Amino acid sequence: MTKPTVSPIEIIKIDGENINHTHDLLAVEEPMEIRVGYGLPNGRKQKRIAVTMRTPGNDFELAAGFLLTEGIIESIKQIYKIQYCTEANTVENLENIVRVELTPEIEIDFGKLQRNFFTTSSCGICGKESIEAIKTVCRQIVENTQLTISRNIILSLPDKLRAQQNVFEYTGGLHACALFDKDGKLLLLREDVGRHNALDKLIGASLSNDSFKANTCILLLSGRASFELLQKATMAGIAIVCAVGAPSSLAAATAKEFHITLIGFLRAERFNIYTNPQRIV
Amino acid sequence: MTKPTVSPIEIIKIDGENINHTHDLLAVEEPMEIRVGYGLPNGRKQKRIAVTMRTPGNDFELAAGFLLTEGIIESIKQIYKIQYCTEANTVENLENIVRVELTPEIEIDFGKLQRNFFTTSSCGICGKESIEAIKTVCRQIVENTQLTISRNIILSLPDKLRAQQNVFEYTGGLHACALFDKDGKLLLLREDVGRHNALDKLIGASLSNDSFKANTCILLLSGRASFELLQKATMAGIAIVCAVGAPSSLAAATAKEFHITLIGFLRAERFNIYTNPQRIV
Repeated sequence: MTKPTVSPIEIIKIDGENINHTHDLLAVEEPMEIRVGYGLPNGRKQKRIAVTMRTPGNDFELAAGFLLTEGIIESIKQIYKIQYCTEANTVENLENIVRVELTPEIEIDFGKLQRNFFTTSSCGICGKESIEAIKTVCRQIVENTQLTISRNIILSLPDKLRAQQNVFEYTGGLHACALFDKDGKLLLLREDVGRHNALDKLIGASLSNDSFKANTCILLLSGRASFELLQKATMAGIAIVCAVGAPSSLAAATAKEFHITLIGFLRAERFNIYTNPQRIV
Repeated sequence: MTKPTVSPIEIIKIDGENINHTHDLLAVEEPMEIRVGYGLPNGRKQKRIAVTMRTPGNDFELAAGFLLTEGIIESIKQIYKIQYCTEANTVENLENIVRVELTPEIEIDFGKLQRNFFTTSSCGICGKESIEAIKTVCRQIVENTQLTISRNIILSLPDKLRAQQNVFEYTGGLHACALFDKDGKLLLLREDVGRHNALDKLIGASLSNDSFKANTCILLLSGRASFELLQKATMAGIAIVCAVGAPSSLAAATAKEFHITLIGFLRAERFNIYTNPQRIV
């Protein structure tokens, strides 16, 4: 069984003088809990990591991406199984609890992690500390200095994203993000009511895909670029981040610190380069 | 000293064939920690409640609004002082820690609260439970059945919001929300990189304003309507919520449960009514 990503609703549509009772579709938003199982086979422990409000679909990718971008795991190889928790089998919460089994040899200092991320809500109390926290948690930041992209390829990305946004098409209610290769070919796209979830799904999916590495790709975000999204891109080693909307000050500072090329306001014929313009030719 | 809400940056602007090195402004995004001081005068305790990534400005309203919409306090009267924490006086984190002093007689069960909200990331693992959590935490949900608004007033709101969006004007990087009275007069507007922060600032400001009550007002959101925003509106007793963007399924379910009129896709000449249309005449 797969949960629906859209939900029907009866609405009243007001358009000028017209009043119509009609049917519409909403993007589904539902909580998903991420748990990890860890420790030796004879002393297995479980920890509840987070509950996020997400659109159902690609739940295992979301869990894997979250664990990586929040610094809980370093590599997809540290996961040996992901499954829905069967103890939570009421109709309402079916498929809303995902348990990720980590390989037995991994030791995690949850205390230290919680002081840094576990969502941006605990990573220091000034911008500088937030950026420092990424360095602490991210044990290996991959930097791709070789990647260069032409201006025309950058300009072509938003149309390709929109053409593939399935759920958004019907609901107008989803954030999207996508990975493109250096020739502008769309490799992967994910959508969610939460933009951080869309990015975690995308990164989780790219981890499970052997045909390319995220750090050789261009990331496109359908909305604005906040610190949280740049944190996640940094953790995935992405070198070029493009946003249709505006970046925040801390997003730009993070991009600068980790040598990411940050592009904003990417529209029809124009865009702004905020950091590391040398990759755009 | 007040922290700036915009930050200058040098950018490269690509527009067709033109390449310009120019100056631009970004919306500032920085962490703010909220702490509460509570307990009897001779045994005062402190608890770190949350760190949120916000745009500086209206920080005390943000803290007060957060405490109310997350169910930590029931009324603004339970706060006797709000101030910046002076122990954190490095240049970087100056004004990034806000301490809210609660009146001594308040007893708070932080354990119970954390199981419910403290941001939506812990309020149950299905939509039904998330809605139930609001009932548990919100001790007095105010329901305003008297409020009716004409269609033309609803249609007039987005232009009034945009006309007043100061920081957005320069950066394109902020969410906004505003309260209007039943005649469509703009009473209060707040902006932030985080839409939940913008709403907490607005609710915090309305709490401190004796000239009107939030539950007699119309709330307008500049973006989409998620569960988190409807949760906060419910906690403030707001009866009519309008969004320029799409609502999620759980936002609509929450509006239905708490008798809120939810309007989405509010544009030039049209809008959709998702729940409780009887208030629109």
